[in-house]
Amino acid sequence: MEGNFSSQLLKNAVSELTRLPGIGQKTALRLALHLLKQPVEIATNLGESIIKLRSEIKYCKSCNNISDRDICEVCANPKRDQSTLCVVEDIRDMMAIENTGQFKGVYHILGGIISPVEGIGPSDISISPVIEKAGSGNVSEIILALPATVEGDTTNFYLFKMLKKFGLIVSIIARGIPVGDELDYTDEITLGRSILMRQPYQGSNG
Amino acid sequence: MEGNFSSQLLKNAVSELTRLPGIGQKTALRLALHLLKQPVEIATNLGESIIKLRSEIKYCKSCNNISDRDICEVCANPKRDQSTLCVVEDIRDMMAIENTGQFKGVYHILGGIISPVEGIGPSDISISPVIEKAGSGNVSEIILALPATVEGDTTNFYLFKMLKKFGLIVSIIARGIPVGDELDYTDEITLGRSILMRQPYQGSNG
Repeated sequence: MEGNFSSQLLKNAVSELTRLPGIGQKTALRLALHLLKQPVEIATNLGESIIKLRSEIKYCKSCNNISDRDICEVCANPKRDQSTLCVVEDIRDMMAIENTGQFKGVYHILGGIISPVEGIGPSDISISPVIEKAGSGNVSEIILALPATVEGDTTNFYLFKMLKKFGLIVSIIARGIPVGDELDYTDEITLGRSILMRQPYQGSNG
Repeated sequence: MEGNFSSQLLKNAVSELTRLPGIGQKTALRLALHLLKQPVEIATNLGESIIKLRSEIKYCKSCNNISDRDICEVCANPKRDQSTLCVVEDIRDMMAIENTGQFKGVYHILGGIISPVEGIGPSDISISPVIEKAGSGNVSEIILALPATVEGDTTNFYLFKMLKKFGLIVSIIARGIPVGDELDYTDEITLGRSILMRQPYQGSNG
């Protein structure tokens, strides 16, 4: 596709769009040509929302969540249980948990997980605020809701070691067969774990 | 995903991004969070290039190509053969032909093709300039390079009827098995046509 743009404006827009993850030359061109067919406000609103997002966004001083204020809506909500702290890797994980409607505590966003392969150590992610919160006396349970990967396990183990001395409840989210899945479609490790981690039958699906 | 955005700025950016074709909530959120991790210039450049693209773009007065000037680079190029006019559906088709490096004439972009199903008639697309150019005495051949679909065929037929009286060469691009394809993977209609449209063997692959 390169080299045949009849317009510098088009070339610039396409080249900026291809910086986005998962957007190649063809998709970028399709998006740019689509925008050209829309009313001018559509492109202006999109462009301005992107510029404002990056230049005006704030992060919650308590939990690292994206926020328009210093303290995010979740942390500032008096109805949330401040004594239950859920530790997640990033904002998308927090949003996913919020969407379940099952958690009424507060969050702490690490902004990454420990990954020796990628050279990410404990000091590269936001771990010390978790330790501070654990030592503050206001937290009774810390839920580790990290990915079920080697990196997630490493981070869980590191956090558990650091949190042990505070005598809090430290829990991790359950791993097992996804709800609605067939056993023979579940991978062996998950199925094996779900047998080892079996729970007393409560007479319901919950 | 809805309803749980902790930031109005993020919500706006995601909602503007989802107006783009093929970009849903999840992708939009991924793009927005990606932009937040980039230097501020990345988001500013992207936003500004989109706004400028839509507000400053011009269309070539001769061929409808996207252009930064009144007449596009192709039409203004003295090395291009102005007597061979290639009619295409849209700018992407023109770019695809340009990328082949096989065409040295000029283009006319219809901006669509006749589609009774979608209610697009001959007057909805840029057909009259083709007729004008055909009647100008400067054009000796018109190549119809439209999609090999029912709509493409309808438009070819309509153009052919309108152009007949000028006594020009009117040709359509060859249809047949794609170069590099196996016969048994080619659909029946294409294979059938490629037999009917067989050409004298020239002793080479061309």
